[in-house]
Amino acid sequence: MTERQVPLTMQDAIAALQKYWTSKGCLITQPLNTEVGAGTANPSTALRVLGPEPWHVAYVEPSVRPDDSRYGENPNRLQTHTQFQVILKPDPGDSQELYLGSLEALGVDLRAHDVRFVEDNWASPALGAWGLGWEVWLDGMEITQFTYFQQVGGIPLDPVSVEITYGLERILMALQGVSHFKDIVYAPGITYGEIFGQAEYEMSRYYLDDADIDTNRRLFEEYAAEARRMLDAGLPVPAYGYVLKCSHTFNVLDSRGAVSTTERARAFSLMRGLTHESAALWKRRRAELGHPLGQHVPPMLPALAGLAPTPELTRTLLFEIGVEELPHADVRRVTAAVREAVSAKLAGTRLPHGEITVAATPRRVVVTVADVAAREPDTDKVVRGPRAAAAYGPGGEPTAAARGFARGHGADVADLRVVDVDGTDYVTLATTDTGRPATEVLTGVLADVVAGLRSDRNMRWNDPSLSFSRPVRWLLALLGDTPLPVTVSGLRAGTTTRLLRTAPEPVVEVTRADGYEEFLAGHGILLDRQRRRELVVRGAEELAASVGGRVDADAEAALIDEITDIVEYPSPLAGSFDSRYLDLPASVLTTVMRKHQRYLPVFDGDRLLPYFITVANGECDREVVRKGNEAVLRARYEDASFFWQADLAVAPEEFRRRLDKLTFEDRLGSVGDRAERIAGLALDLTAAAALPAAAVDTVGRAGTLAKFDLASQMVVELSSLAGTMAGEYATRAGEPPHIAQALVEMEMPRSAGGALPASDAGVMLSLADRFDLLAGMFVIGAVPTGKSDPYGVRRAAIGIVNILRTLPAARSLSVRACLEATASRYRAQGVEIGPEPLDAAAELVARRYEQQLIDSGHEHRLVQAVMLWADTPAHGDLTLATLEKRVAGEDFTALAAALQRVSRILPGDRPSGYDPALLTQPAERALIDATDAVAAAMRGHEDDLAHLVDVCAPLTTAVDRFFEEVLVMDPDDTVRAARLGLIAGVEAIAGNMLDWRAL
Amino acid sequence: MTERQVPLTMQDAIAALQKYWTSKGCLITQPLNTEVGAGTANPSTALRVLGPEPWHVAYVEPSVRPDDSRYGENPNRLQTHTQFQVILKPDPGDSQELYLGSLEALGVDLRAHDVRFVEDNWASPALGAWGLGWEVWLDGMEITQFTYFQQVGGIPLDPVSVEITYGLERILMALQGVSHFKDIVYAPGITYGEIFGQAEYEMSRYYLDDADIDTNRRLFEEYAAEARRMLDAGLPVPAYGYVLKCSHTFNVLDSRGAVSTTERARAFSLMRGLTHESAALWKRRRAELGHPLGQHVPPMLPALAGLAPTPELTRTLLFEIGVEELPHADVRRVTAAVREAVSAKLAGTRLPHGEITVAATPRRVVVTVADVAAREPDTDKVVRGPRAAAAYGPGGEPTAAARGFARGHGADVADLRVVDVDGTDYVTLATTDTGRPATEVLTGVLADVVAGLRSDRNMRWNDPSLSFSRPVRWLLALLGDTPLPVTVSGLRAGTTTRLLRTAPEPVVEVTRADGYEEFLAGHGILLDRQRRRELVVRGAEELAASVGGRVDADAEAALIDEITDIVEYPSPLAGSFDSRYLDLPASVLTTVMRKHQRYLPVFDGDRLLPYFITVANGECDREVVRKGNEAVLRARYEDASFFWQADLAVAPEEFRRRLDKLTFEDRLGSVGDRAERIAGLALDLTAAAALPAAAVDTVGRAGTLAKFDLASQMVVELSSLAGTMAGEYATRAGEPPHIAQALVEMEMPRSAGGALPASDAGVMLSLADRFDLLAGMFVIGAVPTGKSDPYGVRRAAIGIVNILRTLPAARSLSVRACLEATASRYRAQGVEIGPEPLDAAAELVARRYEQQLIDSGHEHRLVQAVMLWADTPAHGDLTLATLEKRVAGEDFTALAAALQRVSRILPGDRPSGYDPALLTQPAERALIDATDAVAAAMRGHEDDLAHLVDVCAPLTTAVDRFFEEVLVMDPDDTVRAARLGLIAGVEAIAGNMLDWRAL
Repeated sequence: MTERQVPLTMQDAIAALQKYWTSKGCLITQPLNTEVGAGTANPSTALRVLGPEPWHVAYVEPSVRPDDSRYGENPNRLQTHTQFQVILKPDPGDSQELYLGSLEALGVDLRAHDVRFVEDNWASPALGAWGLGWEVWLDGMEITQFTYFQQVGGIPLDPVSVEITYGLERILMALQGVSHFKDIVYAPGITYGEIFGQAEYEMSRYYLDDADIDTNRRLFEEYAAEARRMLDAGLPVPAYGYVLKCSHTFNVLDSRGAVSTTERARAFSLMRGLTHESAALWKRRRAELGHPLGQHVPPMLPALAGLAPTPELTRTLLFEIGVEELPHADVRRVTAAVREAVSAKLAGTRLPHGEITVAATPRRVVVTVADVAAREPDTDKVVRGPRAAAAYGPGGEPTAAARGFARGHGADVADLRVVDVDGTDYVTLATTDTGRPATEVLTGVLADVVAGLRSDRNMRWNDPSLSFSRPVRWLLALLGDTPLPVTVSGLRAGTTTRLLRTAPEPVVEVTRADGYEEFLAGHGILLDRQRRRELVVRGAEELAASVGGRVDADAEAALIDEITDIVEYPSPLAGSFDSRYLDLPASVLTTVMRKHQRYLPVFDGDRLLPYFITVANGECDREVVRKGNEAVLRARYEDASFFWQADLAVAPEEFRRRLDKLTFEDRLGSVGDRAERIAGLALDLTAAAALPAAAVDTVGRAGTLAKFDLASQMVVELSSLAGTMAGEYATRAGEPPHIAQALVEMEMPRSAGGALPASDAGVMLSLADRFDLLAGMFVIGAVPTGKSDPYGVRRAAIGIVNILRTLPAARSLSVRACLEATASRYRAQGVEIGPEPLDAAAELVARRYEQQLIDSGHEHRLVQAVMLWADTPAHGDLTLATLEKRVAGEDFTALAAALQRVSRILPGDRPSGYDPALLTQPAERALIDATDAVAAAMRGHEDDLAHLVDVCAPLTTAVDRFFEEVLVMDPDDTVRAARLGLIAGVEAIAGNMLDWRAL
Repeated sequence: MTERQVPLTMQDAIAALQKYWTSKGCLITQPLNTEVGAGTANPSTALRVLGPEPWHVAYVEPSVRPDDSRYGENPNRLQTHTQFQVILKPDPGDSQELYLGSLEALGVDLRAHDVRFVEDNWASPALGAWGLGWEVWLDGMEITQFTYFQQVGGIPLDPVSVEITYGLERILMALQGVSHFKDIVYAPGITYGEIFGQAEYEMSRYYLDDADIDTNRRLFEEYAAEARRMLDAGLPVPAYGYVLKCSHTFNVLDSRGAVSTTERARAFSLMRGLTHESAALWKRRRAELGHPLGQHVPPMLPALAGLAPTPELTRTLLFEIGVEELPHADVRRVTAAVREAVSAKLAGTRLPHGEITVAATPRRVVVTVADVAAREPDTDKVVRGPRAAAAYGPGGEPTAAARGFARGHGADVADLRVVDVDGTDYVTLATTDTGRPATEVLTGVLADVVAGLRSDRNMRWNDPSLSFSRPVRWLLALLGDTPLPVTVSGLRAGTTTRLLRTAPEPVVEVTRADGYEEFLAGHGILLDRQRRRELVVRGAEELAASVGGRVDADAEAALIDEITDIVEYPSPLAGSFDSRYLDLPASVLTTVMRKHQRYLPVFDGDRLLPYFITVANGECDREVVRKGNEAVLRARYEDASFFWQADLAVAPEEFRRRLDKLTFEDRLGSVGDRAERIAGLALDLTAAAALPAAAVDTVGRAGTLAKFDLASQMVVELSSLAGTMAGEYATRAGEPPHIAQALVEMEMPRSAGGALPASDAGVMLSLADRFDLLAGMFVIGAVPTGKSDPYGVRRAAIGIVNILRTLPAARSLSVRACLEATASRYRAQGVEIGPEPLDAAAELVARRYEQQLIDSGHEHRLVQAVMLWADTPAHGDLTLATLEKRVAGEDFTALAAALQRVSRILPGDRPSGYDPALLTQPAERALIDATDAVAAAMRGHEDDLAHLVDVCAPLTTAVDRFFEEVLVMDPDDTVRAARLGLIAGVEAIAGNMLDWRAL
């Protein structure tokens, strides 16, 4: 009708997606007529992914998140947003490509935009569900969740389902270039806000202000009970329906701030249990119904033709493992692991080969092995048969045993030779172990490498038996120019590779192994990680300079590493943002850039500039991508401004009170409880450290506000700003600088090697925070194991060690005493805490201290000797320094020898005291005198190793003489006891200063 | 991909509708995420139709009807069916055509099928909503509800909205030719049952068997309270959301059979109130928000050009009022009303004209007026001015008064003449009243006719001010060949008419008024009702004969009348059904045919044949239409079989118990209460009528089962089978024939002139039923007014009169006594019932009796005279017969005169008794004697008018003599009193036998 260019409306977008997915064989169903938080919760996903029935479906799901209510004021946040959900069960193997096709169906020009699959692992403890996958970024904006579903309701999925969840409002805002959801054109001439604005406001009012709490509590219980009854009646559909009603009601209560610690824990446990039972019952019912939709049968590989003959040349091996986008950390991890695996496995063969190199990008791991021989060399070997006596008859004729042996090795009895082995004659056969062709060797080795791929978190996909961080989708194997038909599970190596998905020809033939890195570079893929990193750094620096700023590549090293491993070809580009956002704290702005967007901030000295550097993957329309990223950042900053303004309207004390509503841990109370313990403990520690009154005052005031910012919207959104925001908000609420500083420093150090608090009050609060966490986690058994340390317990211990070793205010504190004080604070809140968790916590701290000493190059033996001081690491450090200085000296050596001698003869149960009247020999008297004299000299220096070494000579001499002249183990019990008592006194002077036995 | 012909899948159908309505400017929104019983309940309809904002929307709505749960077993009934809902606000004026376009978008060939708009008026008391419209039939199957929404939440709508609700499962079953909803192809290769079968079963289990009743009761209360709170908080969106939750929960309770009488009444009142408040609040909020979607402005007609000059000829007027399909009863009603209006309005003009004829079809009312003159004739008249004395000055010169008078009539003073009027001279002016041209007269008259159109129930549409049974969409007005620009409200007459919508050219030009009926016939439209009716009858008879049966046109007269008025051209065709359905009672089968489908059943004698006659509108593909109708009937019979089987599994006693759960009326208790009263009352009446013991036994047993079939599924579905099914089910449950007969007869007569019960027990039960209803309705004030009699109170009164007049068993019963007995039964259940309702009920019965007598031709005067016997109409009939025989006789005339004389002189307060000692005159004594003698002769014949006339002569003579000789009004008070007492005694003998004054 009209010639005017109209953007794709929201309803057109839905229709386009429905049409597209219909064309790909999906059912289109309707949203659920019960409030759900996400399309995942709809039984069309949550239940249908269970069991063996194929299920390809797409549906719209208005998703209700009471927590996201903003009265329609926030441009990017809605209490009900619209998801478009796709489930592909089983995984068709090309779901990423199918997905990209759907973006094209929405009119997205994939060559112009920067579309990226960015690691995102999804888990819903309440649903007992998890999966691995990505968020999909369109020019930096998350528009889709893409997950390989692995488990639901605590039940592993077989087959695995692909879940694709589009956030329609976000996509439409991007496609239409509008900056507030209300401005989305929903249909020609009518906006989203015009249609849904009123409901957005009113439902926000309901969720945030007006929902009756008691009513919703009762509804929750009613729903749960009805779900329970339906499970008992064997009806999973209504049962699960009531679980969803539970869940929504819980969310309402939560958004009304009405969920107490115990309620939350109980509710989650209840919902998890009901979900699990619903899922299990559904699966069982489907089986009883005979799986009405059929059963998935995993595909089978066709049989393989014979191997090609191997030319007799030395050639290069090229082996590429093609994957869907790996998490950035896996790129480096898999590089090392594959290198190691190939080396080890080749070493297990006799195949001669040259250098092994492995390089990786997010989508490929490439192994090259130089100079691979055509085959393993043959080797001679002798096989022993039966004893000669049994092998030949009296006439020398071969017996049945000999003939059997020969036949067993395909030889003639005439070839048998008699050999003397350890004095007995055996018949033997000389044979040749023929080397296998390289093709045979390599197909085995490489298949094993693929089968052995593992990451920290592994998933399954449509492959019958592989398991890895992300799906392995293709293999390329060439020996020189000969294809190697490596076969593993459902995969077989070919001679093609996949380039960037936006390449004119995304799949290309590879004809030879040599020069593959250049081949890829010619197609816009940089295999060499170092080259990618340099491109990122150089590009960022140049772009920053062009706007009068700089990027600190050293400070941003971790982020740059991450960026390097999420692209196959880095295309850095600069964007800007409205300088009015610079009114927000720089920490907020840079946190958003780094954590959410992987952008590099641009500084002029300390001053943040209104620019950022982002790195696209491969070629794109830079103007389009820049604009897109700018829009995303604007939205993020708009959000942050909203939080900032909203938070400033609330007093720190009020936030502090709200912590009572936030769960810390079920048995350990709310975050408010924790803050209260920290405040008290910090005062205890301050007293123990005998700090001046000013510090006590600061600790007292800061303690009353401890952790308050955890209740602020900003920190709820950007948890890494905890402490930072406390300082910002406290300052704006009129707190003096030292209080603000203490609140900031309470969260320091933020990482194992992070900066320590500077102020005395900060030190005490930081310690209190960490001891509270440490003790609490040991109480509940949430102790770090292996690499897993979800609560940061190990990091807390490291922080404690660093502070105690380094900061004067804390040097005198004892780990044990601190833990005891911590325990008292817990007990005051009614938390039972016995000696075991405290012992374990102290042990963890000691081990971290020990590790630090060893890591910094101290001799293991000496470190062991000073571990007696792990409770006061600062003193340990002093002692270790003395030890290292004196350990080679004569006095020390003699003392150590004497003390070791003493310690060796003393029984485990040390005697305490003795009867001097029984010790009358001169050596005994001399030792008594020397002991008394040295003990007197040590008085007031009991911990001082240097002093001991200085004054110990008489004692050493006396000990030596004693052992020369006196038999300690006198047959007379009473005499023996007196002598042991005497030398125990010697040990008492020095024995607790070092672990002498370790020396 | 495939060449195979695939039927339109359900998901394709949804997509096609969404695409179609999008192209017509509708928004596409998503189903509500709360259970609703219909798309209407979604706020997108229920709230958005309020206020002035335009709103064009289409959405899918899975509609939950717990009552329709059938475990997925019934082929046509689902607890959740899928509606596709369209709202057009304001009415675009061509919504029927838009709708038909959507059927074409679904692939329906409108020329092949029989698509009909069949009267259906929608009202939801719970929503405070109503509208007028149609169900749309596709080959006899209801596939869509089409409603002009008039009111929601008790608030009238301005503008009016068009609501179109498609039943997708039904449409898809028809399009795909499947006979069970589970067999619908939902998507390629997957059926509806495969996707939704399990949920259908499990949710049926929930709704029918497993939902916890106490839980749902509590949920209902919680939801209602939360809705209340949200209203108080000024938030209509969440408030209405909770109303919907209330409503669903109520439906769950209802399907679990857990709603008591008082609960239902309270729940409905609560929900109605909350809905009204939500609606009112929403409307107010939208106004406060400034109507974000804009405000509808009614269209304006362009200004009219001048009228064409009228040729000086006598011509035919043709005036057609084009309407959307009228309810069948309105076709006849509007024909008469328009004929009367045109006649009356033309009579109010001077325009000469010939015969006025009016004919109508469902879509047009056509007026023709023959020989219309070109203009009204001119008429002369004399206008009187001022008195001559004031009109001329002393010199005869005209005064200012005379000049003003002349000027006021456009005349010269010279034209004034002096005329003597009643003795005074006035100046006068002779003028001519010029006749208006016919065009001018007719445009006014015809506009008034259209503006004055009214029916029993009237609606509004997009016209600014008209109101009628259905929208008036076009006017055609021709005087000869001259267009008449009749303009009324938003309509202007043109020169086109609309033919059948399936005509090759649906809109055609009409060039002349003459021969319009033939013109229409040439286009396949029969304007003459009689011709249409004959076509129906002849076609039906021929078709029935062709299958060896017949249609009883006389017995089916009412249905044939209805059919005649729902088509513009009847196309009768025959269909058949599976003879296995003949196992069902014939009454069930014929009821379904007649009531639901407007089919004529085919009999061979008394035996129902497996055929039916349906009548399509206009030309169609008979094979397609026949098959479609057969499928519909099969589905209906499948339903009926399901009910039949299900009902047979329940004992009558159990059904009777379930009546306690069915509301009769809030204040009058449950249907069970009513059945109990009827049972008791029937026994009371049986005793009063002194029937034999056998009858008492039968009434007793049948009474314990009274009304039980109202709880059966069959009667819930087909309420007209009440009683009939009681007989069927009772027989099958082993009750003897006389009990079954009594149960059937209890519901007789079924209409004003319907057959009466035959057995004595049936008579007593029928009377008890009707007296219970009558008294109860007067208690609650639900009395019939005008044409409105929703509870059938008037019909009940007619039934009582017919029975009491006709049936020997009941002849002796008194209406009063029956009502008193009824009242006792009510009181026994605690229902207060005073004298007024009983008086009013007796009065209603008397008036029906009187009306019957007059209607059957009795003289009004005589009827009035016997109305004294209205309490026992059988005796009234006897008395009237006597009266009519004797009224002209001498004895009677004399008696009547005497009695009238007596009655005239008696005071209103009749004296009782007198002192005979004071009456000594001979005439007095003679009268005393005559009175005594006649009174003695009447003893035992007090009610017998004939006997009275036979024996009254002495009394008549004595009365005459008395009045001649005696002055009744003697000055002596005591004498006067005695004389009055004497003649009161005369009156007492005959005064109560007739109302003598009426003669």
